[in-house]
Amino acid sequence: MPGSSFGTLFRITTWGESHGRAVGVVLDGCPAELALTEYDIQKELDRRRPGQSRASTQRTEADRVEILSGIFEGKTTGTPISMLIWNRDADSASYDLLRNRPRPGHADYAYQMKYGLRDHRGGGRSSARETAGRVAAGAVAKKLLQHFGVEVAAFVTELGGIKSRTDSVDLAELRARVEANPIRCPDPNAAMRMMEQLDLVRQEGDSLGGMVTIIARGVPPGLGDPVFDKLDADLAKALMSLGAVKAVEIGAGIGCAGMRGSEMNDPLRMEGGKIGFEGNNAGGILGGISTGMDIVCRIAVKPTPSIAKKQHTVDLAAGMDAEIEIKGRHDPAIPPRMVPVAEAMVAIVLADHLLRQRMSRL
Amino acid sequence: MPGSSFGTLFRITTWGESHGRAVGVVLDGCPAELALTEYDIQKELDRRRPGQSRASTQRTEADRVEILSGIFEGKTTGTPISMLIWNRDADSASYDLLRNRPRPGHADYAYQMKYGLRDHRGGGRSSARETAGRVAAGAVAKKLLQHFGVEVAAFVTELGGIKSRTDSVDLAELRARVEANPIRCPDPNAAMRMMEQLDLVRQEGDSLGGMVTIIARGVPPGLGDPVFDKLDADLAKALMSLGAVKAVEIGAGIGCAGMRGSEMNDPLRMEGGKIGFEGNNAGGILGGISTGMDIVCRIAVKPTPSIAKKQHTVDLAAGMDAEIEIKGRHDPAIPPRMVPVAEAMVAIVLADHLLRQRMSRL
Amino acid sequence: MPGSSFGTLFRITTWGESHGRAVGVVLDGCPAELALTEYDIQKELDRRRPGQSRASTQRTEADRVEILSGIFEGKTTGTPISMLIWNRDADSASYDLLRNRPRPGHADYAYQMKYGLRDHRGGGRSSARETAGRVAAGAVAKKLLQHFGVEVAAFVTELGGIKSRTDSVDLAELRARVEANPIRCPDPNAAMRMMEQLDLVRQEGDSLGGMVTIIARGVPPGLGDPVFDKLDADLAKALMSLGAVKAVEIGAGIGCAGMRGSEMNDPLRMEGGKIGFEGNNAGGILGGISTGMDIVCRIAVKPTPSIAKKQHTVDLAAGMDAEIEIKGRHDPAIPPRMVPVAEAMVAIVLADHLLRQRMSRL
Amino acid sequence: MPGSSFGTLFRITTWGESHGRAVGVVLDGCPAELALTEYDIQKELDRRRPGQSRASTQRTEADRVEILSGIFEGKTTGTPISMLIWNRDADSASYDLLRNRPRPGHADYAYQMKYGLRDHRGGGRSSARETAGRVAAGAVAKKLLQHFGVEVAAFVTELGGIKSRTDSVDLAELRARVEANPIRCPDPNAAMRMMEQLDLVRQEGDSLGGMVTIIARGVPPGLGDPVFDKLDADLAKALMSLGAVKAVEIGAGIGCAGMRGSEMNDPLRMEGGKIGFEGNNAGGILGGISTGMDIVCRIAVKPTPSIAKKQHTVDLAAGMDAEIEIKGRHDPAIPPRMVPVAEAMVAIVLADHLLRQRMSRL
Repeated sequence: MPGSSFGTLFRITTWGESHGRAVGVVLDGCPAELALTEYDIQKELDRRRPGQSRASTQRTEADRVEILSGIFEGKTTGTPISMLIWNRDADSASYDLLRNRPRPGHADYAYQMKYGLRDHRGGGRSSARETAGRVAAGAVAKKLLQHFGVEVAAFVTELGGIKSRTDSVDLAELRARVEANPIRCPDPNAAMRMMEQLDLVRQEGDSLGGMVTIIARGVPPGLGDPVFDKLDADLAKALMSLGAVKAVEIGAGIGCAGMRGSEMNDPLRMEGGKIGFEGNNAGGILGGISTGMDIVCRIAVKPTPSIAKKQHTVDLAAGMDAEIEIKGRHDPAIPPRMVPVAEAMVAIVLADHLLRQRMSRL
Repeated sequence: MPGSSFGTLFRITTWGESHGRAVGVVLDGCPAELALTEYDIQKELDRRRPGQSRASTQRTEADRVEILSGIFEGKTTGTPISMLIWNRDADSASYDLLRNRPRPGHADYAYQMKYGLRDHRGGGRSSARETAGRVAAGAVAKKLLQHFGVEVAAFVTELGGIKSRTDSVDLAELRARVEANPIRCPDPNAAMRMMEQLDLVRQEGDSLGGMVTIIARGVPPGLGDPVFDKLDADLAKALMSLGAVKAVEIGAGIGCAGMRGSEMNDPLRMEGGKIGFEGNNAGGILGGISTGMDIVCRIAVKPTPSIAKKQHTVDLAAGMDAEIEIKGRHDPAIPPRMVPVAEAMVAIVLADHLLRQRMSRL
Repeated sequence: MPGSSFGTLFRITTWGESHGRAVGVVLDGCPAELALTEYDIQKELDRRRPGQSRASTQRTEADRVEILSGIFEGKTTGTPISMLIWNRDADSASYDLLRNRPRPGHADYAYQMKYGLRDHRGGGRSSARETAGRVAAGAVAKKLLQHFGVEVAAFVTELGGIKSRTDSVDLAELRARVEANPIRCPDPNAAMRMMEQLDLVRQEGDSLGGMVTIIARGVPPGLGDPVFDKLDADLAKALMSLGAVKAVEIGAGIGCAGMRGSEMNDPLRMEGGKIGFEGNNAGGILGGISTGMDIVCRIAVKPTPSIAKKQHTVDLAAGMDAEIEIKGRHDPAIPPRMVPVAEAMVAIVLADHLLRQRMSRL
Repeated sequence: MPGSSFGTLFRITTWGESHGRAVGVVLDGCPAELALTEYDIQKELDRRRPGQSRASTQRTEADRVEILSGIFEGKTTGTPISMLIWNRDADSASYDLLRNRPRPGHADYAYQMKYGLRDHRGGGRSSARETAGRVAAGAVAKKLLQHFGVEVAAFVTELGGIKSRTDSVDLAELRARVEANPIRCPDPNAAMRMMEQLDLVRQEGDSLGGMVTIIARGVPPGLGDPVFDKLDADLAKALMSLGAVKAVEIGAGIGCAGMRGSEMNDPLRMEGGKIGFEGNNAGGILGGISTGMDIVCRIAVKPTPSIAKKQHTVDLAAGMDAEIEIKGRHDPAIPPRMVPVAEAMVAIVLADHLLRQRMSRL
């Protein structure tokens, strides 16, 4: 299989390059009868759009989604939903210098080695612009999840070494706090310090890494297909498929390496006639199957590789060492814009497994 | 798709329960003409077998693999390779108490909720015994990789909070050091302290978590299919699909959250007429495509959930709180036995992408 | 994807060569809670077994199926069902002459060109023995269909140019008639003449082709996934994937080429408050989706290619023209044994789409 | 998997409804470095366009393809190729009567039963307009095949009971003859009589069925993946997935039912140092694998279901019997327009298996 599709029953295929004519996504497998409008998609794309804050680049992307198929009289028909976003404001000339000079930390060199040629303008296919299609499909997934009482929320929990404190609150309140600052960090004090730090590194022509946490609430028990398509395995793939993500954690995550079994295990107990758990080190998943507890994922996002500082590279045409300074408007940190994208990917995985779950019994 | 298959071109399907008649794997997509014997498989299965050390359970599993198809006169024929391992020494009666009492930290409750019934004996399908099939298929993958000059090695780098020091050495020497102690830690001093720690927690009826590192060397540039089947995304899925793994890191991993772009980026440079990198924070993967540098993954492995200590649980039949003490011989730490299994999964992903890579150009 | 798997949600993977150690199948995706025993499988395998009649070879194949996984206390568990049949009575030496002389009408030459090597004994992977795995999986599919009120029946409708008359009867009676003679033709007079014809060609060292019809009754409307995984498209693939099948027809089939729209269209009408059709030229499928009418397929089965008559071929080693006379016990006609195999394939397609259908609405 | 995708390595996903905003296709898996322009696509779409002849509807479809991604400086980049065709000239109001009256021989009733709602305008997703995406992707497949010396040609061999005589000629000449008349029949005398017949049934408000033959020449031996993804099985699925196709034949096809083994088998022989076959009853495929001989397929195409004659149907809203007369401009026969579409599907299957073939050996 070629690699631009994801999901099995709720299946998306993204297409498009940063400086090509458009980017888009085809979503096949959304059940019929779901109410869906362009506004449902647009509001998620607007969250992804850059130029909203000091944390993100100022390139103006209109990003108006057009739904081209699959909807009739306001409802999904069960046929493929094709969504398209035209590319605008693409100043390709500024990328000419990059044709032969792969940017450190970017996909340039790897694409060149794989395909023998590449669209070097704005990173081509490897550009973060590809995620617009993911977010559009994720908006449909969220609509589907909402129908089944499932909600997903992501937020920045670390930036430039500054960690936020996250109290357990309801997701609506959490979301409100998250959207209250441009860092998308629910802890206002931490957000303030992160912004200061960001301003500093931007002036130095450098960038910062961070952590994003994603929570899904209301997920019924039973989602996930042993033994390879475990829910955590599919989440790991979905999240690691995002550029800049270098680690994925579920529940206790990397912390489990230092724990004992008696600490790590979440004991079961009856809670008002229903089965519950004392704690959630499992992150809502046991044996690859959801337990009904919150699904909790965390991802490590590397610092933006496009930095203004002078860096070593090579010249592919000349076969010589070279230097590179990356001009232009680039986010000095990726995590704030990663928030809606990570939510989208988690929503897509959950929508897929909600449908797959229908097959497990007679 | 049901969930017991993995890979696209080099594709495995495992089957079998812990206390069923047998476990096995069907590998479809191995190219014809590869020399392969049962010994190639058996030697990897022997590394996985428990009862080798203080770190692992003493249950005697003969684990003799039988190749039932796909080989003719010592070579693969391009047709499916079916491999089977009979189950023996299965004392199912001791599991009777577990039928209605889900073990904390195990898949028991989740399977019950998903399927409405389950084979509770020894964890059934969710047992680590399922990985025998993965290791068998991984042995074929390793043979294929070897043909193309690629080798894979895993080892324990942390156990019970004790970290090992790993000098960069050639993989043959590393492997020798790894197999020199039952912890499979290449640092003999650390291994010694880990063993002491293990003896301690075993006496307390408890268990330890740890970290395993996997390195692949000789991987040509160009492996990985953007944008979803990135090499790191497929590795993340493969490794997270192993029971007990709660985090997957690539290259700098979670550490990248605290780094700056100027630290994280690996500059390119000419090295004797060829293109190389100064550093490998990328872990050998950029934009989801291999760069030719070492592929470096790390996984966090939770402490063995089967502990002798008394734990809270519920009784599914009675709908009441209950207690559970898990008898029997269980590894007090999983990482040493995870080593050959993690190697197998990485080898399978690489074999798959080596074949997929053949499609990228005319 | 390698080619030994079929189906999407109800997914089978067959493995094994004619003269290898065993043949088998792994079925993944059968829902939990289905009552299933080895007898359910065995009775279908017994129908497939040769040596039952003048129409089939006398090689004694015990064909005892062993279910190795996926069943617990008499019910499916939702995990993969692995089924195995050991090979016996394999006289490989008699095939030595065929190593370098591809048999006309067989896969020998094509396999050699594809893989560079092949297991030539008994046709290796291309042997009809592979269909034992299909029949085993088909038996599970039939059990599942039965649960939903769907039944499948196949029968021979033409052999050596002799056509049977098939009155519309209930499927139970039809099945009884079919099993009443070794030709598996529900028309006793035609069956008699077919047998005489068969005896004749056998004496001449030759073979006969024929037609098999497959009917599925009780199929609910709505099965089939536009636009590529249409129910008829998947049936066509399933049936054409059987060796010796050279044509697949649905409903009016090839006859539609000579019809007018006013003849071909099946008008709709109310029948006791429900919607029905006047006629079934559509064969129960419109736009690739089942209508609730009988699914009707027909396949053309070529004459057995293994004939005793002297034939031209080439010697692969010598690169010269050569001759071949195929010894041994071979069916002089394939259709009677095709009956249970074709039923199995249709049952598998329907089981798959019964599950897929669960996804089409909210 | 939802059903709007086809192919494994060369994989297409079509989307769009007849009276929606656009139709299109995403092709993922085309290797990099293939020269490709919009003109390559447009010339195939122009062959598909209606309004070219008395045999086809006069609706004016501009059908200008736009390539939105995957091409850089005139060459494929290995990334998804998204192609879009805007819908125009869609007079939806004329379909209002059809909302509750399913047209006999159409998908209307089946879609309604499957999804609970449907876009009834112009057949919605089940419209032949969907095949524009197939033809666009098929044009890329043809370009790829051409690179490897493979060509595909289709033509009408029967219409309204009139059969054409087809001499074996080179494909370029055949194609010239085919495009010389609006029936796309290479036999000018037969074409003349077919046209007369067509005029007649059109006046009667009726329609005709026919047969289309597809030949692929230059196909190397070794294409096709046993045992389910046989080349003939994939061709059967591809062709049966076209609306109106009710039968698929390979080589001798349905005629094999009346043949003897000694007639059917194609003996092998040496031809100037190379291996060849005496005859091609196999249609270029043995054991599901190409032999190097011409691939020969035939499809039976039912008469256009949209006829002006009064037909019985039901009213879905009223639950009563009803009548229907289908107005508008409809082709009185589908085969002429099926020619480029059938070519496209065969080209896509061959392109897919050309890539898959790269995996069969070390």
